[in-house]
Amino acid sequence: MSRPASVTDLGRRARDAARVLATASTGLKNDALLAAAEHLEAHTAAIREANAADLAAAEADGMGAGPLDRLRLTDARLAAMAAGLRQVAGLPDPVGEVIDGWRRPNGLEISRVRVPLGVVAIIYENRPNVTSDAAGICLKSGNAAILRGSGTALRSNLAVAAALREGFAAAGLPEDCLVLVDDPSHESAVGVMQLTEYVDCLIPRGGPALIQSIRDNATVPVIIDGDGNCHVVVDAAADLDRAAAIVMNAKTQRTSVCNAAESLVVHAAIADEFLPRIAADLQSAGVRLVGDAAARAIVGSIEPATEEDFGREFLDLEMSVAIAPDLGAAIDHVNRHGSGHTEAIVTADLDAARRFTREVDAAAVIVNASTRFTDGEEFGFGAEIGISTQKLHARGPMGPRELTTYKYVVWGDGHVRT
Amino acid sequence: MSRPASVTDLGRRARDAARVLATASTGLKNDALLAAAEHLEAHTAAIREANAADLAAAEADGMGAGPLDRLRLTDARLAAMAAGLRQVAGLPDPVGEVIDGWRRPNGLEISRVRVPLGVVAIIYENRPNVTSDAAGICLKSGNAAILRGSGTALRSNLAVAAALREGFAAAGLPEDCLVLVDDPSHESAVGVMQLTEYVDCLIPRGGPALIQSIRDNATVPVIIDGDGNCHVVVDAAADLDRAAAIVMNAKTQRTSVCNAAESLVVHAAIADEFLPRIAADLQSAGVRLVGDAAARAIVGSIEPATEEDFGREFLDLEMSVAIAPDLGAAIDHVNRHGSGHTEAIVTADLDAARRFTREVDAAAVIVNASTRFTDGEEFGFGAEIGISTQKLHARGPMGPRELTTYKYVVWGDGHVRT
Repeated sequence: MSRPASVTDLGRRARDAARVLATASTGLKNDALLAAAEHLEAHTAAIREANAADLAAAEADGMGAGPLDRLRLTDARLAAMAAGLRQVAGLPDPVGEVIDGWRRPNGLEISRVRVPLGVVAIIYENRPNVTSDAAGICLKSGNAAILRGSGTALRSNLAVAAALREGFAAAGLPEDCLVLVDDPSHESAVGVMQLTEYVDCLIPRGGPALIQSIRDNATVPVIIDGDGNCHVVVDAAADLDRAAAIVMNAKTQRTSVCNAAESLVVHAAIADEFLPRIAADLQSAGVRLVGDAAARAIVGSIEPATEEDFGREFLDLEMSVAIAPDLGAAIDHVNRHGSGHTEAIVTADLDAARRFTREVDAAAVIVNASTRFTDGEEFGFGAEIGISTQKLHARGPMGPRELTTYKYVVWGDGHVRT
Repeated sequence: MSRPASVTDLGRRARDAARVLATASTGLKNDALLAAAEHLEAHTAAIREANAADLAAAEADGMGAGPLDRLRLTDARLAAMAAGLRQVAGLPDPVGEVIDGWRRPNGLEISRVRVPLGVVAIIYENRPNVTSDAAGICLKSGNAAILRGSGTALRSNLAVAAALREGFAAAGLPEDCLVLVDDPSHESAVGVMQLTEYVDCLIPRGGPALIQSIRDNATVPVIIDGDGNCHVVVDAAADLDRAAAIVMNAKTQRTSVCNAAESLVVHAAIADEFLPRIAADLQSAGVRLVGDAAARAIVGSIEPATEEDFGREFLDLEMSVAIAPDLGAAIDHVNRHGSGHTEAIVTADLDAARRFTREVDAAAVIVNASTRFTDGEEFGFGAEIGISTQKLHARGPMGPRELTTYKYVVWGDGHVRT
């Protein structure tokens, strides 16, 4: 498959812009974000018009109501996008932080300084608001952005990007701090995934098919924003009211997100007391439960779960239930079936809590709180580009800091090696 | 291409060992490293015998003197390998460090805790000492290691690995903290590159052909230990004695390493004075010089350089030379031709030094010292698994800390999201 020339050209332009952006002052970057917000608002009519054309084409193609809603840009959503850019402008600048530093016995002075990654590519699906969210967080962290959205949102994305580019230029930064791939072909997506000369990091934002395509095709460094098969473990020593509140919140507060709980693991010692109660609560809220034999022996209305069910990210009003004979078995269950996103335990026992935080292998391990807190906003990052489920570079919610790397700056006095 | 079942099996075993290792105490890991050193020494005869068989086969196959030397394990080299394991045992344990932590307005307490990556795979070439160096640094940082060396060193690697595994087990850790791929086929190498269920990070240690194969085949997260096309820029304000010493050291102290200088960039203002002098010094040391027209106009014995020469990692007594009309042009030259490894400037001018450290995009930017200092030992890391030239996760020399990730540990009091 040959890479479209337009993709190579965008890569070169983004790289050139990134060189300028890497040394731009915090004030200049913030001015550019504020100007982008203004220009976004000033272009509301043009963006709505482009979006209407995308919506009409999508509807004619038979797009369902859910995706159509995600594609739609209302005045309120555009205002929220502008507000998001202004919020990012107000965040601390991660660039320039001296992470650590030391002097060597020979007198060399070494420091590790936070710098932008350079060019960040983002491939995303049918949500035009990602265009401005992603461009804003990239610019804040000193990175040029190459954005490649879905073909269904192309007109909307182009209109949003044009407004943002105008704003960046008005503030005195290169408009190519944001470039948008306007070629909706599969070749252009693969071209971005293989743009090794120019792309320092690729972040896919989308479902399993996109992730698989990235795994198959990408040659640039990638951060996977992956699935969340999150568990809530209710320990023998749990406060059961607290446990019920946390399970209900984690499962039902919002089902379509990666930090929603998909699986409940109940310690056998309290299963007889807790499971009937929580099953009734969940089922009253419309949650379909599937479980292992031990769970079904306690609550007959729980349907049988297959082995696959315990690894499933339902993203819906469904939940798998397992009974664990002890805490070790609960931890094994979580580590075997979890996706490395977020795992929570409810317990009043300090040893159990400490063991869980040590032994569970996930981006976030949570004691006595809902899995729903694994989120850039909730963690205090102010903005989020995604939630990493891989271990390299960034794990968990990714804010502006996670879009940086570092360089070693070394000062000598004519030092040579002997 | 189908993955050999043996590779899948090794992945599973390493993952199981990694679960144990992740929570092993610092003392236990250090005991295991010391025991591995002892067992390595105790098995000297068997390892030498295996190595003799590798050497005989390689010689019969016509292997050259350089590679044969790298393949050879002498008593002194085995002693150095054991000493390396003991040194790693003495280093600080990166695991468990609380990197940062904060309390949210809602009372949630969040900390970021350093944890091992899990399973680290290393694909390397014809150097059996890497077997123990890599296994040692992986174990110190709490990672199980999957090692895949070259077929030419297979007997040696198996003998070294057997000794280390015995040592780990004697100390009470799983012997599968180190597994060695004993299948020298191309399929087994690709199998390791695609072992996404088990491998958290792959580090290739080898030449351009290996790196290209990784880029083409790897589906697991990778840290590229890439080329070093390192420059020394001699600024208008350089102390010329210091500059001469640094250029000579960077180019000639050891030519076959990635932090050796490959290119000299001289500010036009001092080129008439400095270039004849340094060219004579370099040529006296046997260095062949290729340069641009401006350099050749000053020193006639400099041969013409092609555009490719300025991007070449010679790894030999050869160097490219360019004249830059000003510092900006020098920085542009470095950023255009450099490989992101190490770039040095010699200058007495503070503004020039600060501008160079800000604007040059490389893992290490060095002022008034040789490029040869970019090295785990010289930076004080105690051990090094490689030098990253990518920006994701780790940049520059990688010690035990760079083989870790983090998890967020969150403590609540029954918190739910509203």
